[in-house]
Amino acid sequence: ETGVSISGYGRFGLVYDGSADDVVTTNSTTTIHTRLRFNIDATTETDSGVTFGGRIRMQHSSGSDGADLSAAMLFATYEGLRVEVGNANTAYDSVALMYDPEMGFVDSSFGDPQGNFFAFNSGPNPTADYMGVFASYSMGGFTGRISAIDPDQTTSVGAETEVSVSFDYTSGPFTVALAAVQDGEGIADNDQFFVGAAYAINDAATVGLNYVDEGEVPVVMAHGGDQGRTITLYGNYTMGATTLRAYVADNDYAGNVEDTSFGIGADYDLGGARLSGSIQRGYEDETVADLGVRFDF
Amino acid sequence: ETGVSISGYGRFGLVYDGSADDVVTTNSTTTIHTRLRFNIDATTETDSGVTFGGRIRMQHSSGSDGADLSAAMLFATYEGLRVEVGNANTAYDSVALMYDPEMGFVDSSFGDPQGNFFAFNSGPNPTADYMGVFASYSMGGFTGRISAIDPDQTTSVGAETEVSVSFDYTSGPFTVALAAVQDGEGIADNDQFFVGAAYAINDAATVGLNYVDEGEVPVVMAHGGDQGRTITLYGNYTMGATTLRAYVADNDYAGNVEDTSFGIGADYDLGGARLSGSIQRGYEDETVADLGVRFDF
Amino acid sequence: ETGVSISGYGRFGLVYDGSADDVVTTNSTTTIHTRLRFNIDATTETDSGVTFGGRIRMQHSSGSDGADLSAAMLFATYEGLRVEVGNANTAYDSVALMYDPEMGFVDSSFGDPQGNFFAFNSGPNPTADYMGVFASYSMGGFTGRISAIDPDQTTSVGAETEVSVSFDYTSGPFTVALAAVQDGEGIADNDQFFVGAAYAINDAATVGLNYVDEGEVPVVMAHGGDQGRTITLYGNYTMGATTLRAYVADNDYAGNVEDTSFGIGADYDLGGARLSGSIQRGYEDETVADLGVRFDF
Repeated sequence: ETGVSISGYGRFGLVYDGSADDVVTTNSTTTIHTRLRFNIDATTETDSGVTFGGRIRMQHSSGSDGADLSAAMLFATYEGLRVEVGNANTAYDSVALMYDPEMGFVDSSFGDPQGNFFAFNSGPNPTADYMGVFASYSMGGFTGRISAIDPDQTTSVGAETEVSVSFDYTSGPFTVALAAVQDGEGIADNDQFFVGAAYAINDAATVGLNYVDEGEVPVVMAHGGDQGRTITLYGNYTMGATTLRAYVADNDYAGNVEDTSFGIGADYDLGGARLSGSIQRGYEDETVADLGVRFDF
Repeated sequence: ETGVSISGYGRFGLVYDGSADDVVTTNSTTTIHTRLRFNIDATTETDSGVTFGGRIRMQHSSGSDGADLSAAMLFATYEGLRVEVGNANTAYDSVALMYDPEMGFVDSSFGDPQGNFFAFNSGPNPTADYMGVFASYSMGGFTGRISAIDPDQTTSVGAETEVSVSFDYTSGPFTVALAAVQDGEGIADNDQFFVGAAYAINDAATVGLNYVDEGEVPVVMAHGGDQGRTITLYGNYTMGATTLRAYVADNDYAGNVEDTSFGIGADYDLGGARLSGSIQRGYEDETVADLGVRFDF
Repeated sequence: ETGVSISGYGRFGLVYDGSADDVVTTNSTTTIHTRLRFNIDATTETDSGVTFGGRIRMQHSSGSDGADLSAAMLFATYEGLRVEVGNANTAYDSVALMYDPEMGFVDSSFGDPQGNFFAFNSGPNPTADYMGVFASYSMGGFTGRISAIDPDQTTSVGAETEVSVSFDYTSGPFTVALAAVQDGEGIADNDQFFVGAAYAINDAATVGLNYVDEGEVPVVMAHGGDQGRTITLYGNYTMGATTLRAYVADNDYAGNVEDTSFGIGADYDLGGARLSGSIQRGYEDETVADLGVRFDF
C-alpha cells in the first residue's frame, strides 16, 4: 500500500505590532499576514507492517517573495515507534505542552521558549550539510523522544551536535512533560530544560504551567548572553463555539524592558476553520495583536 | 469538506520572432517554447457555507533553468462573493474580454493592453513585502471586482498602492466590460482605463472591440513615457473542429515603428487539447508566429 | 480523461567513503544519505488516443539545503511512440542495461559510464536556455530512441548540440543494447559509444557485459582528457528475498590510480521496500560502501 497525500493549513488576517514604528516612524504597525503550508507526504507500507515515508514541505508566508521548499525528512514507523532522518523533528521542539500558551490566528505567545534550538525546518535547512536523526516511542499516554542534529555532518570540527530528549505522559485530566536540549542550535553549552504540567478541570477548561531554563548564547549574537528562565501560567475556557485563552509569563533575561508578558485571546469555531484573535504585551513593553482566520486541510 | 487539488495546463511548440537576429545575427529566430503550470489549491468548506482556501502556483517556462513557486494566495468564497489576500488577482487584469484578442498556442496578441499593471504573479512576487487584496461579486451575468496592491506593506513611503476596479456584464449575445487602474504597478499617476464590448453573431462567430487608455511610466524606464491608447478589433469563427481568429490593433505610442499591428490564427480541437498557430505583426514591424499544442488538466 | 499523479521514491541510510578524510583529516568518512523524489505528472488523453502530458520533478538529496524543482518536460505519446520536449530524457542515458551494474541503496557503480553526457535534469537545467527533444518508439521487445539537446537554443554560437541515439532489444533471456552520443554534454568531439548484452540464465540469475568508449573532454576540466574505455562484467543472483550482486570493471583513463574497480552488494526484499548494501572499490583505490532502505511510491 503506497500513496502521496498533501495536508497543511492556511491562515490570513491582520497583525499589529505597536513597536514597528518606534525607530522608523514611516513603518507600518498593522500589516496583513498570510501563510499557506503544504506537507507533501509519501508513504509505503511493507508486508511486515513497517511504513516507510518521506515529507517535503512547501510553504509561503507574507514577507517572502515566493514559496520555499524544505529539505526532505525520511521516516519509518512501526506500531508506536517512529524514526526520522534528514530534516527531522527534534525531541525538544516536539514535547507536549510547550506551545500550548499560544493564541491568535498566527499561534504566537511570549510564553513560548525564548531560547535557540533546532526544529523541523519549514524552509531550507540553515546549512547544506545539516543532518538530523530522531526517534520516538508512544505507548498508551506516554511518549518518549530523542534526537540529534549535526549542523555539518561532513566534518568533525565546527558547530556542535545538538542532542535533545523529551518525555510526556497523559493520564486522565493530567499531562506532564519534560524536555532537555544540549548545545541547542549547535551552540556549545547552550543547554535548555523544559518542564510543563497541565490539568483539564473539566471538558471546557484547562490550566497549565510551563517552566523553561533557557540556555545561553554568545553575547555577540542578537539577544545574546544568558537567556534566563521563563515561567508561563496559561489557561483556556470553551463556551459553545468560543474558546477564551489567557497567559502570563515571566522571563528574567537581563536585556528585557519588562520581565512580565501576558496575553488574552479568543477562538471562534467556524465549523472547519477558526476565527482567532489575541492581544499580547511582550518583553520590550510592546503591544502586539492579531485577528484572522485559520483553516486546516 | 476539505481537500487539495492540482490543475493547470501544458503547452509546447515552435515560436518564431523575425526580429530576434536584427542586432545579433547569430541569435535564433525560431525557438522551442515549453510551459507547464500546476495550480496547487487547498480548500476547506465550513458548516456555514463559507469556503476558505489557498493557492501556490508551480510553473516552468522555457528560458528559465527550473520551475518557480509563486507566493501564496489565500481566499474565501461565499456564494457569489470572493475575497483574495496575498498574491491576489487584480480587478484590472481579471476583467472580461481584455485578453480575448489572443491567439496561437502561447495565447499572445499585440492587441493586449500595453501598459504596466499588477496581476497574480506566477513566479515570485516582485518584492518581498508585496501584499494584495481583491474582492469580486458575481450575480447572474454581472461581475464586479476591486483590488489594491501595496508593493511594500511594511512602510508608508516608497511605491504607490495600485488600486483597480472592473465590471463586466453578459446578456445573451452581448458582453460589455469596464476597468480602471490607478498608479498601475505602483507607479504614481500610471492610470489606465479599459472598455470592451463583444457580440456573438451566432454559435460560430464572435466579434469584439477593446479600447485601452494605457497610462504613463517614467521615460527612464524601458518603453517609457506616455503609452498612448490601444484600439483592438477582433473576431473568431468556428467551423467544425477549426476556429479561425483575427485582430487588428492600433497603438499610438510615440516610440512605435508602426502604429498598426495585426494577426491571424487558427485552433484545431484535438478533443482534450488544441493545436494552435498564429502569424502576427507587431509595433516594431516585426513578424512573430507560433505553432504548437496546448492541453489543460 | 485528465489528471495529475505523483510518484517517486525515498531512500535513506549510511554511506562510507574511505577517501573522504585523505586530504582533510577531520572530514567524515561515514555520513547519512537521504533523498526524496516526487515526479509530478499531468496527462490529458485526447479523443484520438494521443496523450499529452508534462512533468516537473521535486527532489531533495542530503548535501543541499532544500528541495529543488526541475525544469518541465512536456510529452506526447501515441501507442509505442513517445516524444519529449524541454527537460527531455536523452537516448544515450535511457538505453537498457547501461545502469544494471548498480548496487546498494544509492544505486551506484564504478561500472557505470564515466563520460559526460546530458540526461533528464533532476534539479535546475545547467543553462537557462537549455532545450531538448527526444523521441522513442517501442514495438514488442524493441525500443529505439533519438535525442538532441541544445545547451542554448537562443543562439547558434557557443556550446554544441548533443545528439544521441540508442536501440535495445529483448528476446527471451537475451537483451542487447547499443547507444551513441555525439558532442556529449555540448562539448565538441566528446563522442561516446555504448554496447551491452545481458543473459538471464534462469529465473534467479542474470549476467551481463557492458562496453563503453568514453569520449574526451578538455584537459582543463576536472577529470579532463581522453576518458578511455570501460568494460564491465556484472551479475546477480536471487535466493528467496535476497538478491546478491557483483561486478568488476576496467577503465583505462590515464589519471586512474587503479584501472580495475569492483563491487559486491545485496538487496533484501522488505515487501514494498528494499534493504540494500554494497562494498565497492573505485579507480582512486578508494573503498566506498552503503547500507540503507529504498521505497518506491
